[in-house]
Amino acid sequence: VKNSFAERMNILRASDIREILKITQRPEVISFAGGLPAPEFFPSREIAQVACRVLEREGARALQYSTTEGHARLREQIATRINAKWDTTLSADEILITTGSQQGLDLIGKIFLDRDDVVICESPTYLGAVMAFNTYRPRWIEVPTDDEGMDMLELEAALARERKVKFIYVVPNFQNPSGRTWSLQRRKDLMALASRYEVPLVEDNPYGELRFGVEAFPAIQSMDPSDLVISLGTLSKIFCPGLRIGWIAARRRFLDKLIVVKQGADLHSSTFDQMVAAEYLDSYDIDENIGRILVAYQARRNVMVKALELEMPEGVRFSRPQGGLFLWVELPEVIDSRDLLAKCLEHNVAFVPGGSFFPARNRHNTLRLNFSNMPEDRIVEGIRRMATALREMLAEHVGHPDPAHEASSAI
Amino acid sequence: VKNSFAERMNILRASDIREILKITQRPEVISFAGGLPAPEFFPSREIAQVACRVLEREGARALQYSTTEGHARLREQIATRINAKWDTTLSADEILITTGSQQGLDLIGKIFLDRDDVVICESPTYLGAVMAFNTYRPRWIEVPTDDEGMDMLELEAALARERKVKFIYVVPNFQNPSGRTWSLQRRKDLMALASRYEVPLVEDNPYGELRFGVEAFPAIQSMDPSDLVISLGTLSKIFCPGLRIGWIAARRRFLDKLIVVKQGADLHSSTFDQMVAAEYLDSYDIDENIGRILVAYQARRNVMVKALELEMPEGVRFSRPQGGLFLWVELPEVIDSRDLLAKCLEHNVAFVPGGSFFPARNRHNTLRLNFSNMPEDRIVEGIRRMATALREMLAEHVGHPDPAHEASSAI
Repeated sequence: VKNSFAERMNILRASDIREILKITQRPEVISFAGGLPAPEFFPSREIAQVACRVLEREGARALQYSTTEGHARLREQIATRINAKWDTTLSADEILITTGSQQGLDLIGKIFLDRDDVVICESPTYLGAVMAFNTYRPRWIEVPTDDEGMDMLELEAALARERKVKFIYVVPNFQNPSGRTWSLQRRKDLMALASRYEVPLVEDNPYGELRFGVEAFPAIQSMDPSDLVISLGTLSKIFCPGLRIGWIAARRRFLDKLIVVKQGADLHSSTFDQMVAAEYLDSYDIDENIGRILVAYQARRNVMVKALELEMPEGVRFSRPQGGLFLWVELPEVIDSRDLLAKCLEHNVAFVPGGSFFPARNRHNTLRLNFSNMPEDRIVEGIRRMATALREMLAEHVGHPDPAHEASSAI
Repeated sequence: VKNSFAERMNILRASDIREILKITQRPEVISFAGGLPAPEFFPSREIAQVACRVLEREGARALQYSTTEGHARLREQIATRINAKWDTTLSADEILITTGSQQGLDLIGKIFLDRDDVVICESPTYLGAVMAFNTYRPRWIEVPTDDEGMDMLELEAALARERKVKFIYVVPNFQNPSGRTWSLQRRKDLMALASRYEVPLVEDNPYGELRFGVEAFPAIQSMDPSDLVISLGTLSKIFCPGLRIGWIAARRRFLDKLIVVKQGADLHSSTFDQMVAAEYLDSYDIDENIGRILVAYQARRNVMVKALELEMPEGVRFSRPQGGLFLWVELPEVIDSRDLLAKCLEHNVAFVPGGSFFPARNRHNTLRLNFSNMPEDRIVEGIRRMATALREMLAEHVGHPDPAHEASSAI
């Protein structure tokens, strides 16, 4: 072919996670790799009921083209729900339904980013956002992040220094991959800085409702004096991901632009799936379903934490998140988690190496564990296998520090 | 906001069509504007049946995340179907399921286009492709097109002259907006030129199965000696558009790249909708359903052609397409079809002005009519109203040539 691909194709590649997921489809593999919800809590029977009702009552509408903005009733329901849960003041008119919140990320990248524009993010940050935004070739500034959120001095230094910051991207609740939740004070500080520097703030909140008994802090969007926050949400974690229903909530100066690029991207999301979701939300109590999910996820988180405490060798640290789907693990410095993954796959257990979650630097000795998708006994067995593999690797390293290896991991 | 939007937002705007569609949702408006299939042929009852069956048998799978490539069974069915209909030799592995074929266009733009790269297209060309590709800011070269396809001398001149042609985009069957179908010879000539210049060829075929009794020509993809053709298809026109199921069919050197960008764009299309479509294709004879659609559309086309012949004043020319959804109309030079639209909306009838279908030039005196979505009596009445509005405008122009107006239409 004479003229090959666009320049962006030199840096875009398939996500590690999805490649690992393919390997882990063998039933003998215990996988902590995906971000999959537990399918036993999908309300299949209820969805079948509402799907039939929608088709019987309004088939011609449910199967036809519809507006780019999304199904009117669903936009209303979402605005009402997030206002009640997150103290925001959004109208249905400020909700755009997207094909999963992954599409929301792509659309946000599309309206804001020219090549070499700057995106500021947490360190680590969500891999799906890295993939989506990298399409538009930004520079990434990772701000050091502790258990309360970004380091505000570092953030302010970046805002003062960089001239082309297009937005700040954060996942303030049970972040993927770290499991961290921002403190109330840090949320306020972040909003104040974004306002002072007039920089849009993208608040991605897929896990906020998966709380294990802890209080929720209000959304950063609820503290926004300057209409700078664009928030993302999804039904994937509280209902089911297969319908691909997410949304962007923002004031119209942003939403108008997002609607234009959504038109070009897929015209609109599935009319049928949107109407099925709306009918479900009108007919059933989704909070009851979330309650059932939480009981199981909390038990699984507890089992995984206990297994890690029991099985892992010295020098392994891990988070104890109060919600969400993920645990974050730091290994001894000598271990590259990609090597550990290779060994773990021999033991039929899988996870995601942490490197992919650092768009600007790399932390080779980190990894992400999902605790929502495996039953408790498989979690115990999987952590045991991982610990065995790790002990083997550590034993190989004793008395054999490997400088060549360490140099390569520093890339 | 300090740093505003990406540069691309200066040229992207909401499609005229979707803005007009909003106006035409009032029931008193007879709309020839959309590209909507007739909803009375959506197999709602059958879809309800297969949806329930899918959820009962495989709910946990149908509602879960799935692979970016798409549902395996659906990819097989599509490969088998297009090989049988269009003489191609595609495997299931060479099919990527997309969120409508609009998404296919966006993904193709994404993998190929850097700013100022060249896209070669028919004149006029499909507005959805203009919207999707403009996101990546190409230059457009419109090749003059007659009733057999592009002018091959002009195409060759463009290929010889332009150094950054990334692909040629064509809709060879019942094109949107012109209704034109390429001749067999012109397809062969196009393929020969694309091969000689090693330029990828995007063959968009949403309407190929909507044929009113005429023979089908083989797909250009079936004549491809160099694996340069990337074809697009959709279930929107032969099944229903609300499920947003389209596909890209191409050799893996292209498909691998498309899969990477699809991951970043929405992870995957609705698992549920894909499995519902696959179950429908396994359980029912879609060709029977297409047969019913064709009887109605052919009758509507006939009624519209006859009404145009009867009602329209001298100097109006229009196509008589042998399939698809659209008729193309050329008005007398003095008429700007956007002005006619404004007048027609007063008479409660709507269409799409032709200007949007010319990315590089403009032909102000053209318009597109959809004949699939309105019952026959409404078609007759709608054309009558259009003719009345047009006669009024022509009367205003008699003895009042308007140079200012003509200058502005030439933009």
